[in-house]
Order: sequence, then C-alpha cells, then structure tokens
Amino acid sequence: MSLIKLIEILAILVGAFSGFVEARSKKMDIVGVFTVAFITAFGGGTLRDILLDQRPLFWVIHQEYAILIFVLALIAAPLIRTLRHIVSDRLIVIADALGLGLFSVAGVAAAIAAGMPLFIASMMGVITGIFGGVLRDIVCNEIPMVLRDGRPYAICSFAGCWAYLLMQQSGLPPEISLWSSALLITVLRLVTWAADVQLK
Amino acid sequence: MSLIKLIEILAILVGAFSGFVEARSKKMDIVGVFTVAFITAFGGGTLRDILLDQRPLFWVIHQEYAILIFVLALIAAPLIRTLRHIVSDRLIVIADALGLGLFSVAGVAAAIAAGMPLFIASMMGVITGIFGGVLRDIVCNEIPMVLRDGRPYAICSFAGCWAYLLMQQSGLPPEISLWSSALLITVLRLVTWAADVQLK
Amino acid sequence: MSLIKLIEILAILVGAFSGFVEARSKKMDIVGVFTVAFITAFGGGTLRDILLDQRPLFWVIHQEYAILIFVLALIAAPLIRTLRHIVSDRLIVIADALGLGLFSVAGVAAAIAAGMPLFIASMMGVITGIFGGVLRDIVCNEIPMVLRDGRPYAICSFAGCWAYLLMQQSGLPPEISLWSSALLITVLRLVTWAADVQLK
Repeated sequence: MSLIKLIEILAILVGAFSGFVEARSKKMDIVGVFTVAFITAFGGGTLRDILLDQRPLFWVIHQEYAILIFVLALIAAPLIRTLRHIVSDRLIVIADALGLGLFSVAGVAAAIAAGMPLFIASMMGVITGIFGGVLRDIVCNEIPMVLRDGRPYAICSFAGCWAYLLMQQSGLPPEISLWSSALLITVLRLVTWAADVQLK
Repeated sequence: MSLIKLIEILAILVGAFSGFVEARSKKMDIVGVFTVAFITAFGGGTLRDILLDQRPLFWVIHQEYAILIFVLALIAAPLIRTLRHIVSDRLIVIADALGLGLFSVAGVAAAIAAGMPLFIASMMGVITGIFGGVLRDIVCNEIPMVLRDGRPYAICSFAGCWAYLLMQQSGLPPEISLWSSALLITVLRLVTWAADVQLK
Repeated sequence: MSLIKLIEILAILVGAFSGFVEARSKKMDIVGVFTVAFITAFGGGTLRDILLDQRPLFWVIHQEYAILIFVLALIAAPLIRTLRHIVSDRLIVIADALGLGLFSVAGVAAAIAAGMPLFIASMMGVITGIFGGVLRDIVCNEIPMVLRDGRPYAICSFAGCWAYLLMQQSGLPPEISLWSSALLITVLRLVTWAADVQLK
C-alpha cells in the first residue's frame, strides 16, 4: 500500500469519528449516524475525484471501508455513551485538526499525481481537507463551520498544501514532505485555535 | 423497454408528484415547483450515475421526461388545488413509500449491472432511493427527513436492497426479484410508519 | 479566444463580484469570501460540465482564473468598504442580472456544442445561469433566492435560452444570437424586477 493511501485511510477513520460524535449530538438515529459519518469521511475525496474525473472512486472499489464505517456506526452509539467522559470538546477539535491535515495532504498529492497545475493542486488539497465537514454541516442545516468560524481553518490547510508543494518540487523524499506538511496543518490549526486567533 | 427502465419511470413520476406537493405547500412559484419536482424525481439517479461515472445521464438523452415534468408543473398548481380533498397527508406518505421502493430497486439493479460489489450496490440502492428527497429538503432549507425522522426510512431501503441481492444472486427471474423487493420496501416503510416504530 | 469563452469570463467576473458582496454582508472572513466568490463564479458551469461529463473543467486547466479570484478576494474587503457608497442594492441587482444573462447564454451554447437535444440544452442554460447563486445561498444556509423570490428569475433565463436556440437554429451569426439573447435575459430580469411582477 502506498504512503498516500495510508494517509487517506487514517483521515477517513478520523473523519468518521468526528461524524459519529456530531450525529449523536444531534440525536440522530443509527441510519443518520452512519450517513453523516460516511459523508464526513468520504465527502472531500469524492468531490475531488469527481472534479478531477478519476474513477472508480476509492470507496466504490474498496467496499471494506464502507463496511467498516457501517459496523462502527452500529457500535458507535453505546461506545460514545461509554466514552462520554473521555470525548471532551478538546478531543473533538484535536481529531478534527488531525483529519484536516491528513485529508489536505492526501488531496494535494493526489492532484499532483493527476498532473494538475500547482495552484489547482493546492485548491484540491483544501477541498479534500474541508469539504467533508462542509457537507456534514449542510446536511445538518448549519452554515458550514469553515465559513462562519472566525478562526483560521481552510487557511491552515492552504498553507500546509503549499508547504507540501514546495518540498515536493524541491525533490525531498515523499515520506518527509507528506508527514511534515500534514503535521504542519494540524499544529497550525491547534495553535491558532488555542490562541483564539481571529481572521477579519 | 427493459423492466428496470419501467420501474425507474414509475419512480420518477411518483417522485415528481411528491415534489409538486412539497413545493406548493411552501408557496413556491411555478419555476420553484418545476425545480423541486425535477430535483426530487432525478436527484437520486443522477447522483448514482455521477458516482458510477455512467453517461449520458438518463434524463439528458430522454428529454421527453424533463418535458413531461415541465408540462405537469404547469398544470400542477390548479390540479393540486382541485385535488386538495383527495391529497391527504396519508396519500403523500403512500406515494413517498412507493417512490422509495421503486427508486431503491432500480438503483441496486443498475449498480449490479455496472459490476459493483454487493455492499456498494446496496448503498447505491439506498442513495438512489433517498437522495431525491434529501436534495429536496436541503433546497427547502430543512434537515433532511431521513436524518431527523426517528422512524425507519433508509433502513427499509437497505433491507429491501439486500432482499433483491439475495434473490438476484440465487438466480430468481428478474420480474420476481425486482417487484417483490420494491414491494417489500414500500410495505416495510408503511407498516413501520403506521405502527410508529422508533429507531434509536 | 472564442466568443463563448469571452462571455463565460465576463460572467465569472460578475459572479465573483456578487459573491464578494454577499459574503462580506455575512461578515465572513477572507477564506469565506474567497470560497463564496469561487462557488458563485464557477458553480453553475461546473455542475453543467459534470452533468455533460466534459473534462477537464474550465477552471482546472486555466488556473489563472482561480488565482485572479484569490487575489481579488484579498483586496475585496477594503475595496467593498471603500465603495460602500457606490455599491447600492440596485447595483447588486444589476450585476446579478448581467451574470444571469451571460451565464445562461454560455451554458446553452456549450450544451448545443456538446450535441444535446434542444430542451436539455435550454435546461443546461438555466442551470448554468442560476446554479452559482443557488449554491451560494445553500452554503449561506438560506432557501435559494430563485425558489422563494416571487419575481421572475429562472423564467427569464429560460425565455432567453429559447430565444438563442431559435436564432441559432435559424442560422443567424453567433455574435448576434449570443449577445442579443444575453441582453434579452438581463433586460427581462431588470424590467420585471423594477415593475415588481409576481409569479404565482
């Protein structure tokens, strides 16, 4: 398995986790929990692949990931109830920041592999990074977090995607450029969130 | 005309009908009525075909269906006003349940015909079955019914899709497996709705 | 550069302008302003190209337009603050009507060039004309203007698309049929808006 696929799978698990928590906090039933988790986990990558016209889609050929989220949704309700003491707001923000970093880097790398020009590749990274959460919020009938939260979110992804592009173009080995830019995005998001930095 | 196409056309008519009623109850103008009916009728199948990368889309090559919904929208307003005594809430739920069964079965059969693995085919059935209504609710600025209604909805579609897959894999003739699983979904939805079964 | 491309570029600039104003009026940050402007400018054409399965997408191969909107978004906030006296509601409606005309005509011409039947081509024109604004409103968590505003909107686009189709089929030179039908849509929208014509 390639390194990019590994990163995408990690991102999917983190995204599904944030979807579970969100859907449970909205008192959705089991089908709603599965749907929201699925949309959050696969929404960004699916939109990117539709825009780039790359088929078959990742989750269409690897049905094991859809089945995994299905099984996790079945046990998510009692699990989250049990873990309530552990699942604090802080943990959710950390999981979300991890997902932002992993998805963004997987997205920009996939766009480069598909031969996109640099600026479009960086936008594909941002789209992959944030769109799962945007779809989740639209389905839950809210203005997407990324558009109303004054704190840096998409801009962290954008900065990290360009860090990746610079490292990738200057010939650094992919292990270094992929992991370090994913880490950069996550850290940028967490630090600006904790410091309550406001964009204008 | 193949049996699957016939089922899809029946589903489109039922979906457009539920779109008409919904849009009129929101006091939308004629363009809104046509748009909501069109989205409800073609949304699920279009998303499925985009995800499976199957083109041209059904309604793009068969413009007669788009024209039919256009003409129906023109006469829908006076028609629904006239039929107000007949169009009770109960009739809408029945029409919606019929559409759920027909769309789901058309979706799962199309996915199998496109060579998808079983679990993904069942998900394509559910997507085709419920997504028209989901889009309709998003456009009307509501949390989609399927995610907030505690009663079984998507899960009826899911069960019926697997009933179809079992019958289809065991070699039953398509007339039997298609119609009986569509009927199963409709009956499941109506019975659990009437009995007010609640999911948790 | 072909005439259709020129019209599409004018439409993109007008769409981005309306997105800037909308996003600033919602107090969004710089990322939100860019995103809403980008969605409004490219949403309609992107949906049309996905439905017609035409790739690569316009903005994916021409990254200069995405970069242009990015740069404009950076200077939009102070610009709009400076221009507040000039940017009246009336100017926004005029810009929006211009965009409706330009996008619709670019859409219907692209669909004809892709070999679509006439009615579908007219629908692609309407979709290209209105969908950017629809997406913008969904992202901003509102019922799309086109569905709730009682005044003619989509129907102006629809009429102008058919005017184009009639002129194009009867062999008029493209310069005349394209510009005059775009003008027709814009004028129809402005006149019915000013006269407060209400659809039922």
